[in-house]
Amino acid sequence: MTTKPVRTVYLDHAATTAVDPRVVEAMLPYFTEKYGNPSSIYALGREAAAAVDQARRTVAEVLHAQPRDIVFTSSGTESDNLAIKGCAFAQRKQGKNHIITSPIEHHAVGHTVEQLVKEFGFEVTVVPVDRYGVVDPDDVGRAITDRTALVTIMYANNEVGTIEPIPEIGAITRRKGVPFHTDAVQAGGSLDLDVERLGVDFLSLSAHKFYGPKGVGVLYVRRFAPLMPILTGGGHERNRRASTENVPGIVGLATALRLAHERREEENAHVARLRDRLIQGILSTIPDVQLTGHPTNRLPNSASFVFYGIEGEAILLNLDLQGVAASSGSACTSASLEPSHVLLAMQVPVEIAHGSLRLTLGRENTDEDVDYVISILPGIVEKLRAMSPMYHK
Amino acid sequence: MTTKPVRTVYLDHAATTAVDPRVVEAMLPYFTEKYGNPSSIYALGREAAAAVDQARRTVAEVLHAQPRDIVFTSSGTESDNLAIKGCAFAQRKQGKNHIITSPIEHHAVGHTVEQLVKEFGFEVTVVPVDRYGVVDPDDVGRAITDRTALVTIMYANNEVGTIEPIPEIGAITRRKGVPFHTDAVQAGGSLDLDVERLGVDFLSLSAHKFYGPKGVGVLYVRRFAPLMPILTGGGHERNRRASTENVPGIVGLATALRLAHERREEENAHVARLRDRLIQGILSTIPDVQLTGHPTNRLPNSASFVFYGIEGEAILLNLDLQGVAASSGSACTSASLEPSHVLLAMQVPVEIAHGSLRLTLGRENTDEDVDYVISILPGIVEKLRAMSPMYHK
Repeated sequence: MTTKPVRTVYLDHAATTAVDPRVVEAMLPYFTEKYGNPSSIYALGREAAAAVDQARRTVAEVLHAQPRDIVFTSSGTESDNLAIKGCAFAQRKQGKNHIITSPIEHHAVGHTVEQLVKEFGFEVTVVPVDRYGVVDPDDVGRAITDRTALVTIMYANNEVGTIEPIPEIGAITRRKGVPFHTDAVQAGGSLDLDVERLGVDFLSLSAHKFYGPKGVGVLYVRRFAPLMPILTGGGHERNRRASTENVPGIVGLATALRLAHERREEENAHVARLRDRLIQGILSTIPDVQLTGHPTNRLPNSASFVFYGIEGEAILLNLDLQGVAASSGSACTSASLEPSHVLLAMQVPVEIAHGSLRLTLGRENTDEDVDYVISILPGIVEKLRAMSPMYHK
Repeated sequence: MTTKPVRTVYLDHAATTAVDPRVVEAMLPYFTEKYGNPSSIYALGREAAAAVDQARRTVAEVLHAQPRDIVFTSSGTESDNLAIKGCAFAQRKQGKNHIITSPIEHHAVGHTVEQLVKEFGFEVTVVPVDRYGVVDPDDVGRAITDRTALVTIMYANNEVGTIEPIPEIGAITRRKGVPFHTDAVQAGGSLDLDVERLGVDFLSLSAHKFYGPKGVGVLYVRRFAPLMPILTGGGHERNRRASTENVPGIVGLATALRLAHERREEENAHVARLRDRLIQGILSTIPDVQLTGHPTNRLPNSASFVFYGIEGEAILLNLDLQGVAASSGSACTSASLEPSHVLLAMQVPVEIAHGSLRLTLGRENTDEDVDYVISILPGIVEKLRAMSPMYHK
């Protein structure tokens, strides 16, 4: 028997978020009374098509894009796959078989590039990152050749929160005429998504990272950007992504994105203040701990650390017992015992990389949540270190 | 100004269905309080993972499969794409580059096979169908070579309702050791889905065809069947389909599939009775009309026709004005002016194929709905024929 923790604190908003009640409310009619297929020509179908059109305009507005540039997908992973495979396959016959990426991408990007290399004969250049996880735009520029089909560099890292210099990379790719994709899945709720300012040709979003539903995403596709569909079938999404539109999901995504960007400044200020208290509290009360990622140029809600001499998984289990939901890095690799590829790319020694902890804040978190974590974490770390053969004070 | 029709009758259940209120109820908690990411190791994540596991067991039970054989996807289209591309790409290096299919497949299959031919060097054999749209299993057997990577033949046709001899084809592919995929999207709610009896290695389903939500599907994958993932990233779905699981959608799909199969016999009897009244009523009151598809071996809810001398689209618009939602064939091609590839493959003359109408019944339809359609359709057809230069009595 475990006793119920005194408090439950969700600090894993980078993994997923609860759907905003206003978003659920917007979605609900499209399950039942407004259930038409948007491809149908009768009234019920036209009503569903109009809802999808409105959602497309809403998303386009936030991205400073045209509605026709917005492709609704089933997830951030699908958006990344469509951008990367779609852009690569579309140019293969012109001899373009080279992709440029970074070593800290989410697996939806990293493994997709790997599949293109292993199974389809593409070549890849992985530009390095510095110890904060930042890509140097000049490295990207130098890696571009006549055969480069795509540059894909994430907007903000999901494990350590570092924000990449996307506008600077975009200026280079634009000058050289190479398509540029950014995985903005982690940045979607909090950073500026103006595709003109960013200079990107493809941008991926996932609704469940910004209080929208799971199972729906967006790929922004700049007009004329090369793209071969990866889901073929009906002519949906202007022949870029076949499948009956997930009408409630699409409505939910657009509603959540609109809500997030209407209150972006206030919410960012709120979580950044809590984040800074959390970082300060942890660094000042626990010895042998290091902040990972960029000290200032990071997602407003993201605090990430490595604790020397202990396993991140053990910290998580102890936090869970005390009601705190956190992550050692990416939820998508929680089952893996490998140290984070992100931390290794940032030259964090492998034995230290095992002790990673990611705390990501959200709208509903409070100062009391932060106080609670700061009050229990030192004890957890001390206990684990006392048992650890790896830790030598 | 249009006047409101006296009655609204939804007869396009093959296009999509309203989500069952019990399904919505089952989904709702997973949007808000149970919003965890199933990959997360804390309580909220484990709760979501348990819901996905339970859904997987439910689906496996209906299919007489193992839970590990069930892959959740975002749609029937994605399931078809994963089965076909995944199975084809997985075997290409062993020199298997040949696919066998039929000319009456949904575009999610047909266009996917086409993409493999045009872009990836595969070869295809399209076996014929008879005038009812039925594939001859012996034709499939004769088309199989040492290089055949996959046979893909649909379970039941979405435009004319014809049921294909899947167990007979399955016996042949099994004997010859060739993987066999069936697109069961249209059959999912009403036909037997026992994958052992069917003898299939891959089977596609889509929730929104059986009173589940849009945006979620299933691919059954027999153990050891060759499969390269098409959405790469995290290790979800046993490395067969990356993406954070759409937990509410998956729970909704499983709930809807269970409900549909618990009451399959009664519901099939209900819609088949209405369908037969509809067919009888239309054939006996309207001249120069022909039932399309197999006269008896067809989906219990599906009635489809061609009316000589008029356009199906015109019939639909007139039906819509009188409150009846119907289709000329597939919702996914409603915007197309091409006559149906299905009807042409069944040797329906092109000028007649333009006059197609599909009426597909559902749980909530009544005898009064049927009476209403039979009362208004003759007038609509007569009016359109009077204006048609194509119709000569």
